[in-house]
Amino acid sequence: MKTYANIWQDIVRIREKKPLIHNITNMVVMNATANALLALGASPVMAHAPEEVEDMTGIAGALVINMGTLDARWVTSMKKAALHAKKLGKPVVFDPVGVGATAYRTQVAKAFLEEFAPDIVRGNASEIMALAGANGLTTKGVDSSHTAEAAHEAAKELSEGHGIVVVVSGSTDYIVYKEKIAQIRNGMPMMAQVTGMGCTATALCAAFAAVNPDYFEAAVGAMGVMGISGENAGKLASGPGSLYVHFLDSLYQLEEKDILKGLKI
Amino acid sequence: MKTYANIWQDIVRIREKKPLIHNITNMVVMNATANALLALGASPVMAHAPEEVEDMTGIAGALVINMGTLDARWVTSMKKAALHAKKLGKPVVFDPVGVGATAYRTQVAKAFLEEFAPDIVRGNASEIMALAGANGLTTKGVDSSHTAEAAHEAAKELSEGHGIVVVVSGSTDYIVYKEKIAQIRNGMPMMAQVTGMGCTATALCAAFAAVNPDYFEAAVGAMGVMGISGENAGKLASGPGSLYVHFLDSLYQLEEKDILKGLKI
Amino acid sequence: MKTYANIWQDIVRIREKKPLIHNITNMVVMNATANALLALGASPVMAHAPEEVEDMTGIAGALVINMGTLDARWVTSMKKAALHAKKLGKPVVFDPVGVGATAYRTQVAKAFLEEFAPDIVRGNASEIMALAGANGLTTKGVDSSHTAEAAHEAAKELSEGHGIVVVVSGSTDYIVYKEKIAQIRNGMPMMAQVTGMGCTATALCAAFAAVNPDYFEAAVGAMGVMGISGENAGKLASGPGSLYVHFLDSLYQLEEKDILKGLKI
Repeated sequence: MKTYANIWQDIVRIREKKPLIHNITNMVVMNATANALLALGASPVMAHAPEEVEDMTGIAGALVINMGTLDARWVTSMKKAALHAKKLGKPVVFDPVGVGATAYRTQVAKAFLEEFAPDIVRGNASEIMALAGANGLTTKGVDSSHTAEAAHEAAKELSEGHGIVVVVSGSTDYIVYKEKIAQIRNGMPMMAQVTGMGCTATALCAAFAAVNPDYFEAAVGAMGVMGISGENAGKLASGPGSLYVHFLDSLYQLEEKDILKGLKI
Repeated sequence: MKTYANIWQDIVRIREKKPLIHNITNMVVMNATANALLALGASPVMAHAPEEVEDMTGIAGALVINMGTLDARWVTSMKKAALHAKKLGKPVVFDPVGVGATAYRTQVAKAFLEEFAPDIVRGNASEIMALAGANGLTTKGVDSSHTAEAAHEAAKELSEGHGIVVVVSGSTDYIVYKEKIAQIRNGMPMMAQVTGMGCTATALCAAFAAVNPDYFEAAVGAMGVMGISGENAGKLASGPGSLYVHFLDSLYQLEEKDILKGLKI
Repeated sequence: MKTYANIWQDIVRIREKKPLIHNITNMVVMNATANALLALGASPVMAHAPEEVEDMTGIAGALVINMGTLDARWVTSMKKAALHAKKLGKPVVFDPVGVGATAYRTQVAKAFLEEFAPDIVRGNASEIMALAGANGLTTKGVDSSHTAEAAHEAAKELSEGHGIVVVVSGSTDYIVYKEKIAQIRNGMPMMAQVTGMGCTATALCAAFAAVNPDYFEAAVGAMGVMGISGENAGKLASGPGSLYVHFLDSLYQLEEKDILKGLKI
C-alpha cells in the first residue's frame, strides 16, 4: 500500500516538476527513450559532446548512461558527465547494454562501476550476471539468456559491493538494494519484441530518481510503471508495432487507479 | 486568402518535385524527420561526413542544420555544408536546439549566425531569446520556458540584424522577417509531448523553401502545415504515441480544403 | 511451390533460433531495423566500435553493412567486421545507400566490393546501377530514379563479376545470382514513403541468410516477406505513419497461409 502510494506520488511529482533527464544513450533508442520520458511527463535531453556534458548534467535532475552503441569518444563523455553528477549529488542510472557480449563492453562497464558508483544499474539477467563477473558467462548480445531468478544473487553481490540499487528486468523484475528486494510481476512477453524497452525502463528509473531521493523506491516505481503501461498497451496491441504506440499512450494516460489496481508487487 | 493559396501551391510543388532535403541533424529525430519529409512529399537524405557534405548539398534543394546532439566533428561538416549552400544560393534552415542550455551550444549557434546567415532560423521562445543574446537567459534544455510572445522582440532583432526569417514556435507560432510578422494559431498542446516536433517543423521549413524562394512565405506554409496536421491528428489520438502516427498520416493526406478551412492565421 | 515452402521453413527457423544479426548501419533506421528484426523473430544488435566489432560479428549469425549515414570512422569498423565475417564464413549483407549520389559514397562502396565480397547486396535501381559503374549515372540521394528493369543488367554484371547475390528493390524486386533470377511482385507504393524500408529489407536478408546457407533463396525469402507484410499492412493503413506500425504487426503475425496465398513470384 505504501508502495502504491509512493509510486503515484512520484508520477504526480514528475508531471509537475518535469525534471530534465540528461541521456548519454545509444542511437537505436534515442527517439523511443525521449518519447517515453515525455509521455511520462519528464523532459529529455540527449547530449554527448565532451565540451558540454558537465553543463548539461548541471542543469539536469538525473543522468542516464547507456552503452548500447558503445564508442570510445562517448565513453569519455559518459565518465565526465557521471563524475560531475556524483559531485553534484545527482542520481546516475547506468544501463550496461550487452555487457559480456564483447570484451570491450565488459571492460568499459567494469571501469564505470569502479570509477563512479552509479546509483541505479538496470539490465537483463545476462547483463547483471556478466557485470557481477559471476563466472565469466557470455551473453548473446542484448538478449537475456538466463532467467532473472538466477541473476538474483549476482544483483545482491553487486548491490552490496558497490552500495547501489540493482534492477534485473525480466518476466519478473527484481529490484535489489543490499538486503532489500522487491519483485514486480507486471509486463507482458511481447514487450521483448519492441526494441529499447529495457533502455526505456532505465530512463524511467532516472525520471523517478530525479524526484525521489530513495533510489530503491524510484526503481520500484519505474519498473511498476513500465510493466503496467506495457500490460495496458498489450490489451490493445496486434503486434509489436502497435504495442509501442499504445505503450506511449498508456504511459501518458496513467491514472492513480492504474497503479492501485494494476501493480503486481 | 493569398496565404492559403500559396501554401497549397507549395504543397503541390513539393509533391511534384520531391525536392531532396539534406539534413545534418540530431540522432534523436533523424527517423521522425525523414518520415515527416516523406509524408509531405519531399525526399530526405541524412549525411554528415565532411568528405561528402558539399556534394550532397550540391544536389539538394535545401539544407537543414540542427544542433540537437551537438558534436565538434559534426559542427565542421555543418559549417562546410552551409557555406557551400550559401555559395550555391540554396536555402539553409537552422534549428538551434537547446541554445542557451550550455555554453558550448551558445558559442556554436552564435558562430553559425556570424559565419553564414541561415535563411530561416526556427526555435522555441527560449532558444530564440538565447540566440539573440537577449540578456544571458538560461534555457532548460530543449523546452520552452518563456512565452512565445516575449520572444517576439528577440526574433525581430535577429531578423533585422541578420536579414533572415525567424520562426518562434509555440502555442502561437510567430514568423518574423524584418518588419513583417505572421502568426499561426494551429496545433495542439500534446504535440509538445512528442519528441522532435520542433525539429520536424524545421525540416518542413526546408521543404517549403526548396520550392518557394520567398522564405517568409515558405516558413508560414511549413508552420501552418505542421499545426493543421497536428490538429487533425489530435482528433484521432489517445496519447503522444498515436498522435505521432496520425500526424504522419495527416501530413500525407493533406488536401486543399484542410488548408482552406483549417488555417488559423 | 518449392519457393513458398522454403520461405516458410526459413521463417520458422528464424523464430526458433532467433539468430543474432550484427548491424553496422545508419542512424536514421537503427530503431526501425531493430524493430523489424525483432518482429520477424531475430535478435538485432547494433555495434560499431572498432574495439568490438570483430567480437560482435563472432557471436552473430550474419552481418549487415549499411552506409546510409556514412562516416570515415565507421567505414573502418565496417571493413574490419566484414573481413572477420568472411573469415568465419558468416554472411555479409551490404546496403550501398545513396551510392552514386556523392563521390565519397561511390568510392567507399567500390572499395567494399573489392576488399570483401558481400554475400548479398541490396539497393534500389539507381544504387545498383551506380555500384556497377554502369555509365557514371548520378542518383538523386536515396531515391530510385531508374526503373528496376533497367538495373537488371547492372545486377547481373555485379553478380557475375563478384559471385554475389544482388537484389534490386522496386515495385518488382529482382533477385539475381549469376544466371538465376527471381522476381517478387509484392509490396505497395506507399512503402516508399516510410523511411528505411529498403534498409529493413537488407536487414531481413541478413536474418534469412543466418538460417539458410543458400543466399539466393535467403534473399528471395526476405524480399517476399517484406512485400507480403507491406501489402497486409497497406490494407489497414491510412498513411505512412500507420503503415509502418501495421508493417511491424504484420511481420510479427506472419502465418504460413500469408506466404502460400500472398507470394507473387
